[in-house]
Amino acid sequence: MIDQNDLPFEFNIVEFHNYRETCLAIRNMTVRGAGAIGVTAGFAMAQAVLQAPARGREIFITNARYEIESTRPTARNLFYAVERVFNAGMDSGENAVIEVQDIANEDMNAAKSIGIHGNNLIKDNYSIATHCNAGWLAFVDHGSALSPIYHAHRSGKNVFVYVDETRPRGQGARLTAWELYQAGIDHVIIPDNATASFMAQGKINMMIVGADRIAANGDIANKIGTLEKAIVARAYNIPFYVAAPLSTIDLNCGSGGEIIIEERDENEVLYQQGIDKEGNIQEILVCSPGSHALNPAFDITPANFISGIITEKGIVNADANGVSSLFEKT
Amino acid sequence: MIDQNDLPFEFNIVEFHNYRETCLAIRNMTVRGAGAIGVTAGFAMAQAVLQAPARGREIFITNARYEIESTRPTARNLFYAVERVFNAGMDSGENAVIEVQDIANEDMNAAKSIGIHGNNLIKDNYSIATHCNAGWLAFVDHGSALSPIYHAHRSGKNVFVYVDETRPRGQGARLTAWELYQAGIDHVIIPDNATASFMAQGKINMMIVGADRIAANGDIANKIGTLEKAIVARAYNIPFYVAAPLSTIDLNCGSGGEIIIEERDENEVLYQQGIDKEGNIQEILVCSPGSHALNPAFDITPANFISGIITEKGIVNADANGVSSLFEKT
Repeated sequence: MIDQNDLPFEFNIVEFHNYRETCLAIRNMTVRGAGAIGVTAGFAMAQAVLQAPARGREIFITNARYEIESTRPTARNLFYAVERVFNAGMDSGENAVIEVQDIANEDMNAAKSIGIHGNNLIKDNYSIATHCNAGWLAFVDHGSALSPIYHAHRSGKNVFVYVDETRPRGQGARLTAWELYQAGIDHVIIPDNATASFMAQGKINMMIVGADRIAANGDIANKIGTLEKAIVARAYNIPFYVAAPLSTIDLNCGSGGEIIIEERDENEVLYQQGIDKEGNIQEILVCSPGSHALNPAFDITPANFISGIITEKGIVNADANGVSSLFEKT
Repeated sequence: MIDQNDLPFEFNIVEFHNYRETCLAIRNMTVRGAGAIGVTAGFAMAQAVLQAPARGREIFITNARYEIESTRPTARNLFYAVERVFNAGMDSGENAVIEVQDIANEDMNAAKSIGIHGNNLIKDNYSIATHCNAGWLAFVDHGSALSPIYHAHRSGKNVFVYVDETRPRGQGARLTAWELYQAGIDHVIIPDNATASFMAQGKINMMIVGADRIAANGDIANKIGTLEKAIVARAYNIPFYVAAPLSTIDLNCGSGGEIIIEERDENEVLYQQGIDKEGNIQEILVCSPGSHALNPAFDITPANFISGIITEKGIVNADANGVSSLFEKT
């Protein structure tokens, strides 16, 4: 997989040879993004199934499952993929591998469909704000929040993207900007603090973000700062959409209050990584020495701040009826 | 003066020997913060008066005034102090020096009174959020937004401060955290993205920020991100106060729409400064190479999002009546 910690300064492909190495890659965010975490966790589960000794096979696989599930608590896609591969792997290693390859294909197709549906919301000359990175790096391909933007661009619409920097880890400034630059889509990086100001000036037509987990009532967990953007968008009547595949929806989770929010190391706030004048990767202290920081990785945006959820099955209202309609048998 | 660009990693006192050097110090933010900018600009004006040649004295002083006023467009205190020292300096250099020393004393006394009035709003065990740095570094002493917190702490109240990092220049993480650490006041640095989340969880009792200019109708200009915080505070019914001396109020400015917002260099967003493991100051690129950034230094918070304005004359409503009441003759 691509080492996302090295981006945008280096493009490195890294390999992980057993499920423990893959767990570490999820934990330290070598791979991040809801869909990419899900598929990677599925591959970790398949690796565990293949690694399992004949004696004590079931215990080994079950323990590995808990270990994989403990890497990151918030992204629904992780649990979704691990469960499917775990169940398939009970029969055979071959079935586990087939299952995770199916998940990867489904992820890619869902992201593409999200782009087609979401593109219907985008008018020519729209300026669209986004937070964090929910592009192709965050999925097998296409992305969730960026997929409609890619489709709009490819269909000939003129689009401009306001990219929230997304402190502390800068996924907007580092990953979304990198994706958009590669794709030749006009964009500008803005400090997270500036979104409201540009909205107040009427410069942003809509906002699209991804999601790490969607509750049955339409509440969502997404990268820290999403709640703030949703509240501000509402204040200026700017449509605020969440783009995510059905695998991000957790029907067993009634509302956002039930979602576990990952607390990450304070050093991600206190220090920042980048490249110096010689092109070497450096980590520097950017805060006052001796002070501490809090680093919640996600926040909960209540459904009533969300204009709609863009899925591979179409766009639905962010409420219990909208979410359940996605799972109705046709 | 203290070189604020070196803080929190080095504490250096620097001297500027003529008004042009002092202008540069304002422009490159060696000195920043509404009150500190005002007094420094006043000293620059006094320096210009003292430097002025006998022949063409008035033209020299007038040109210097425009030069000083062009350093930073948003802070009202700068124009307030320059005008007073300019008028005093028409008579003599001695008068200019006396005038700016008066301004410095008034700034210090106003900040102290703000602390006394603001302290009345703070209950024991309050958690208070603040944005940017409006502490004693930003004034001659005491500060505006932090002055009530210092007074609450000294009067024996238990207070806890959520310090917004305040990207792009990190005045919260670097300066406010440094001030609070020196004063022994409990605090934690949070990414700007996290304020809404902590407010939603009921962890913040009130928010106090400073201001760079206050319009006659109570709209304010303050550090980029202030608007976003005010909107979010309103969504959760959290009192949102602005603390500033009367010298920040611009009665000639009808509303926030008339305030000029300074656009700063994109490199302040694209690069970040800090110290490496060896303790050397380093500047690193933290964004994707090739992408550009926008860097508005301030935003406008409409009066209706502000619970009240804390001044040296007491706390007033953020509206035309409240602001004008401060200037009524008693």
